[in-house]
Amino acid sequence: MATPRVTVWHEYRHEKTHKEVSDVYPEGMHTPIAKYLREQGLDVKTATLDEPEHGLTEAVLAETDVLTWWGHMAHHEVQDEIVERVQKRVLDGMGLIVLHSGHYSKIFRKLMGTSGNLKWREANEKERIWVIDSGHPIAEGLGEYIELPHEEMYGERFDIPTPDELVFVSWFEGGEVFRSGCCWTRGRGKVFYFRPGHETFPTYFNPEVLKVIYNAARWAAPHAIEPIPIVNAKVPLETIRS
Amino acid sequence: MATPRVTVWHEYRHEKTHKEVSDVYPEGMHTPIAKYLREQGLDVKTATLDEPEHGLTEAVLAETDVLTWWGHMAHHEVQDEIVERVQKRVLDGMGLIVLHSGHYSKIFRKLMGTSGNLKWREANEKERIWVIDSGHPIAEGLGEYIELPHEEMYGERFDIPTPDELVFVSWFEGGEVFRSGCCWTRGRGKVFYFRPGHETFPTYFNPEVLKVIYNAARWAAPHAIEPIPIVNAKVPLETIRS
Amino acid sequence: MATPRVTVWHEYRHEKTHKEVSDVYPEGMHTPIAKYLREQGLDVKTATLDEPEHGLTEAVLAETDVLTWWGHMAHHEVQDEIVERVQKRVLDGMGLIVLHSGHYSKIFRKLMGTSGNLKWREANEKERIWVIDSGHPIAEGLGEYIELPHEEMYGERFDIPTPDELVFVSWFEGGEVFRSGCCWTRGRGKVFYFRPGHETFPTYFNPEVLKVIYNAARWAAPHAIEPIPIVNAKVPLETIRS
Amino acid sequence: MATPRVTVWHEYRHEKTHKEVSDVYPEGMHTPIAKYLREQGLDVKTATLDEPEHGLTEAVLAETDVLTWWGHMAHHEVQDEIVERVQKRVLDGMGLIVLHSGHYSKIFRKLMGTSGNLKWREANEKERIWVIDSGHPIAEGLGEYIELPHEEMYGERFDIPTPDELVFVSWFEGGEVFRSGCCWTRGRGKVFYFRPGHETFPTYFNPEVLKVIYNAARWAAPHAIEPIPIVNAKVPLETIRS
Repeated sequence: MATPRVTVWHEYRHEKTHKEVSDVYPEGMHTPIAKYLREQGLDVKTATLDEPEHGLTEAVLAETDVLTWWGHMAHHEVQDEIVERVQKRVLDGMGLIVLHSGHYSKIFRKLMGTSGNLKWREANEKERIWVIDSGHPIAEGLGEYIELPHEEMYGERFDIPTPDELVFVSWFEGGEVFRSGCCWTRGRGKVFYFRPGHETFPTYFNPEVLKVIYNAARWAAPHAIEPIPIVNAKVPLETIRS
Repeated sequence: MATPRVTVWHEYRHEKTHKEVSDVYPEGMHTPIAKYLREQGLDVKTATLDEPEHGLTEAVLAETDVLTWWGHMAHHEVQDEIVERVQKRVLDGMGLIVLHSGHYSKIFRKLMGTSGNLKWREANEKERIWVIDSGHPIAEGLGEYIELPHEEMYGERFDIPTPDELVFVSWFEGGEVFRSGCCWTRGRGKVFYFRPGHETFPTYFNPEVLKVIYNAARWAAPHAIEPIPIVNAKVPLETIRS
Repeated sequence: MATPRVTVWHEYRHEKTHKEVSDVYPEGMHTPIAKYLREQGLDVKTATLDEPEHGLTEAVLAETDVLTWWGHMAHHEVQDEIVERVQKRVLDGMGLIVLHSGHYSKIFRKLMGTSGNLKWREANEKERIWVIDSGHPIAEGLGEYIELPHEEMYGERFDIPTPDELVFVSWFEGGEVFRSGCCWTRGRGKVFYFRPGHETFPTYFNPEVLKVIYNAARWAAPHAIEPIPIVNAKVPLETIRS
Repeated sequence: MATPRVTVWHEYRHEKTHKEVSDVYPEGMHTPIAKYLREQGLDVKTATLDEPEHGLTEAVLAETDVLTWWGHMAHHEVQDEIVERVQKRVLDGMGLIVLHSGHYSKIFRKLMGTSGNLKWREANEKERIWVIDSGHPIAEGLGEYIELPHEEMYGERFDIPTPDELVFVSWFEGGEVFRSGCCWTRGRGKVFYFRPGHETFPTYFNPEVLKVIYNAARWAAPHAIEPIPIVNAKVPLETIRS
């Protein structure tokens, strides 16, 4: 398999308006993710909401094997046309990694068909992300769990379709659980949702969290390049009877 | 469980413009389905595209436990607002049974997140619908397969998310297979796709086909009435530590 | 559907040797379960390890729609022949509800193909059993979670095949999570594993726990009576070509 | 990932007693499989039933990442002790590829928990193996289907647990369908069942069939080496409350 080409997409708004966030991520939340993936040998670009076409032109997507997505305060500003473009690429085989508050993004809800709702609480509490499927490629190299001392809580019920594969389940100090690492296939494309990453915590500097994103990028990269046809195909009667 | 209330929704256009169809279904394709379900003791209404709000007002949906859906030539005429209304009700617990060419309806594609594409051929060929999951409630009372002497062919690859449960797989005389009976959960609602039912064949008079639709209505009816909240819920920190 | 016939199977050893257990369950752990199911209108028998053939004769199983199973200290005393008999009945359509320490029983491991291993700790800690699939019949009538003030902890990784349906996930005060309510199909039979029920706690007097067992019995009862053939079937060539 | 080490296990009996088989496979059915996998760069050994310990010593299994299994007339001669040894290795992470009549082997039935039954017919009929999950690594490089002009028929209902992933469905000329490419996880190990390969046909010389076995070996190879502990683990109370 050729080196996966990853585009790290980031809303990039909180950092410009909330000092609490820019103190933690002075170069944006996308920067430590992109840096890590690059160091592991992947071919990495970044794109952000305020670029033309949100940085997701046809040309960029055509050269993207895996797209990661973090958004929160401006989900509604993402243009429907770009969302449809991303969906089409996923169905054609591009991998998609949705991070944290991306559970409520247009693209995630469009691919899932559900509301993406969940419970949440900001209380700087402890999270333990337990490995449920220890033989899964996304869990490669991890121990039994990842522990984050301070994170936002997300709790069930998380309104998603049943994951095709459930890799992680989180435990929160305050009493909740959450399906934190979920895999689905849509068309020829793979989708992975990964829970942690609140903007006021240095979660995307955590080496185990980064390792998961890297593993997921390897897992989600398409295995072959030919897309499935996106239009209905009328087929002639093959005359096995003749 | 109370008697399920079923609304049989039908596009009802082919019958008005194609004599070939009205010859088979003089009262519309919805009529034999509604009649059969009523005879089994269900509480049945019908609704059609050309009624105001397509017959799917808030009031009608609020009193519908299971909605069946057949559409084909006028998918694009179904208003987006009504599609969103139906989706919301499914997420709140209403069952949805999508029939035949409904694979390409707005509501099915919206709930699936995929294109709904497939192969097809009109060659009046034989179909055998094999029971794959013989213990499933939707297969209750059937033999090993249902045989239809003349149907339209639908072939793989069918662009759907992996079904949560796969009940039927079809064999076609011309050389294709198809996942013909597929179950998913979306929110609190159950969705069943059932393949047969081309408008020029008397498929919806076939007692085994009707039995499947009845079984599916029983299976898809919600078990309880309280909906899940559709908005995010911020929860206070429960102080197990105090 | 006729009234499900349930056999509540219990190892019934702890109560005879551990005062701590007989203080909580003076008539055995099976008694409150059987009593509750009877009160809900099910047709209920009990059977225990020390009866001839463990109380699971061919005749008893032939009249059992759903079998519940609690065992712990004497898993190894269950005869292989009886285990195979139970397995065969499950494949033919009998439901099986495996409770708590039954995760390590011969019958559960035989049906799963895995070790059934897990983590555990006896520390009288709080458990919250979260409802993950709120539209599932087994979750009918429950709130968001069941809270048990004192239970034994079971933790991941639980060595089971991926459940076909995941209904509950537990949170434990000490920091663990566990897939607490898991559904599988084996042959025509349905299998449900339900976690709580340590012998020193009055868990099987908890009305919500009992409600889950009742819901599961309804869910697991077979929908039809004819078994699938247990031997290979050689079929003649059907000559569609002729 | 290091080069996967594959052990191609073969019953190797038909070739010694049936001229019809040795005419097709003069060096045994395992030979063309092993040869192909070697040519693709995998590290390949073979092992057969009549070797001591069936060629599957602890030492051999310890150095095997993926085991392929073909057996038919002598399933009952495989020693239970060796079956348990293979199962343990699968749960620890070894991949297992079960071929054709291996559906009735002790190891497959032990890992599945079901009977492995199916329908069958020897009528030299045409099989089409349709790709259902075109983005799956096991389908890499294939077209829409593999066509085999002459094969034994296997038909549903195939008594297996619902596959975690369904890659292929077969169509047979005589009127049947079959889930031909099925994936499961057991413990840390991956299991793939692949249908074609009757001993009187040159199926294992077919380049597409061989390609699937190669793809499956890549997919099934474990991602990491540390096994999960096979015994229960009692864990101390972690005192988050202190």
